[in-house]
Amino acid sequence: MSGEPELPRIPDTQGPHAESLGEWLRGEGPDVDIALCTRIRFARNVQGYRFSTSLDAREAADLDAFLRRAIASLRIEPPLTTHELTHLDALEREVLVERHLISREHAHSERPRSVAYDAGESVAMMINEEDHLRSQVFRSGLCVGETYRAAEALDDALLGAVPIAFSEQFGFLTACPTNVGTGLRASVMLHLPALVWGDEIERAAHSAQKIHLAVRGMYGEGSRALGDFYQVSNQITLGRTEAEVLEDVETAVRQLVDWERRVRIALLSGRKADQTKDRVFRALGTLQNAHILTSEECLTNLSAVRLGVHQELIQHLTVRDLNQILLLTQPAHLQQLCAERLAPADRDARRAGVVRAVLTRAASR
Amino acid sequence: MSGEPELPRIPDTQGPHAESLGEWLRGEGPDVDIALCTRIRFARNVQGYRFSTSLDAREAADLDAFLRRAIASLRIEPPLTTHELTHLDALEREVLVERHLISREHAHSERPRSVAYDAGESVAMMINEEDHLRSQVFRSGLCVGETYRAAEALDDALLGAVPIAFSEQFGFLTACPTNVGTGLRASVMLHLPALVWGDEIERAAHSAQKIHLAVRGMYGEGSRALGDFYQVSNQITLGRTEAEVLEDVETAVRQLVDWERRVRIALLSGRKADQTKDRVFRALGTLQNAHILTSEECLTNLSAVRLGVHQELIQHLTVRDLNQILLLTQPAHLQQLCAERLAPADRDARRAGVVRAVLTRAASR
Repeated sequence: MSGEPELPRIPDTQGPHAESLGEWLRGEGPDVDIALCTRIRFARNVQGYRFSTSLDAREAADLDAFLRRAIASLRIEPPLTTHELTHLDALEREVLVERHLISREHAHSERPRSVAYDAGESVAMMINEEDHLRSQVFRSGLCVGETYRAAEALDDALLGAVPIAFSEQFGFLTACPTNVGTGLRASVMLHLPALVWGDEIERAAHSAQKIHLAVRGMYGEGSRALGDFYQVSNQITLGRTEAEVLEDVETAVRQLVDWERRVRIALLSGRKADQTKDRVFRALGTLQNAHILTSEECLTNLSAVRLGVHQELIQHLTVRDLNQILLLTQPAHLQQLCAERLAPADRDARRAGVVRAVLTRAASR
Repeated sequence: MSGEPELPRIPDTQGPHAESLGEWLRGEGPDVDIALCTRIRFARNVQGYRFSTSLDAREAADLDAFLRRAIASLRIEPPLTTHELTHLDALEREVLVERHLISREHAHSERPRSVAYDAGESVAMMINEEDHLRSQVFRSGLCVGETYRAAEALDDALLGAVPIAFSEQFGFLTACPTNVGTGLRASVMLHLPALVWGDEIERAAHSAQKIHLAVRGMYGEGSRALGDFYQVSNQITLGRTEAEVLEDVETAVRQLVDWERRVRIALLSGRKADQTKDRVFRALGTLQNAHILTSEECLTNLSAVRLGVHQELIQHLTVRDLNQILLLTQPAHLQQLCAERLAPADRDARRAGVVRAVLTRAASR
């Protein structure tokens, strides 16, 4: 048999292009076996402009240009590069969404708008999204304090360069009242397969919701959490200090991390161990062998394999291999990698090919 | 993680124990990619004894001893060794059933009874089964004529040594009227995954049934054919000559073999190819990685992998590897290999271990 389609060349994350995974999938940092990434976001608006949602086209272009210049003038590390989204095609914008650098709404909006981010993708500033400026800082692993300090430094630089709308009574003013006050959102992306398999995820989510944190599936719509990825974030921005909010998030996330860790150990003890290994290795076998793979099945199997790698059941794979698969098998990345637009059915075959290519390379290391 | 249970040492079928697969799984011969094995069976009864089902214990013991001596005296190749089933324990008898050397009824009957077979397991004679003697000859692959000639030579030797019940009007007399006449059953074991996957198996079976052949699943009960294995055999023993019966079976089987082969090619053409490869390789991935494997799932996945090996999608496995798995994962073989009685739930873990061991060895060749 010939006819095996040539697999796309997979970028080598071990080599000089290691930064291509971006900060949120770098796979290093405290508790990164469960907490993939910490993110701090500030919502800010510029004095003298209406909110973005109310701007006419000329005003929007004016604001966009103003903020691009302002960001370019900031003396910050790492340096940022600014990209006007209207200069990018739909696929390029979709790639930025999949890398968590811009929101889906920002990709699809028709306003003049931009994004500034650094080479390591640890900082991303959206211009003319719902607010004039949404600054985000990412750190691999669970590190709320460190991420906050980096975001605060960025915000301080911004406040020194741009007149930001602020009210003594309410704090920072934002387009949507849910962000007024601190304009701060702290979120941590968690991988909680053991809580899902052990049927404890509902109770776990509820414990975080009790202190007004939001728990959402990172992939999929509504309450479905494909791949067992969850995002925990604060909802309150008014009436609590930044320090209090950060502590709420950190405390709740630590609780979830400990809980997940206990259940992982239980899943590999006694009579459950065979079932867990069965689930983990079958998932690996499917990823290594499938020739057609939907996005959903890919995420589900990646989740089991990720657990297997972190619990040292699987020795020859690294988390970076899995993160690369997670990133590259998303629709836009897949099409960019294959250098062509693909119908959904063809994507499933290409996705399977990319997964096999990454895993084959890992097995031959 | 330690705690991987030690896998049983798998006999090496490539080495001096190669004969341990038996003739029916030897995996060589005409059309063996679809027709695993041809079998010819003669039902014979000894003059002067009532049929086995009517014998009292003393008569049964007497007949059993008489036929053991008679068979030992036959000057035939290959030489046979005789085993009294009452000297074997239940597990040993079950192993003989799984090797197709005796019937399940013969294993469980309480009569004094025996079996004689050769080292290569190409000949098996059951003493005191439903008939006094059931002689079977096996040949790997599709070779009705050659198998018949070997069975005929064996039968001639027997007829020269033992007074066999024969009626000029009816032919050979048998305990059940369905065998009277020739006492001949010719059967071929077929692997028909493409006809099953392509939803043509019903039509195919019907075409054989039209000329009074029986088509039965080899594994499983009733109409379910686990692993896509089917046995095609004649039902008529009276009113048609042996030559006519053999021709019926051979013609029908050839038709099924050609049909299966056409559909296999179609399954690997055009848009179906990806789906077929997906099915084949996922099955391989499951067998290589599962830690819990029921007998049914094992057969299902083996079937897909067998197709993959024969169609040269899978290069590193041989049919003998698969045949060894087929043989060793049966309950009695599994328990013999593990040298202990296993509860069904433990069997599923051991079965998975045996499968992984065979496939790992194959991958490292």
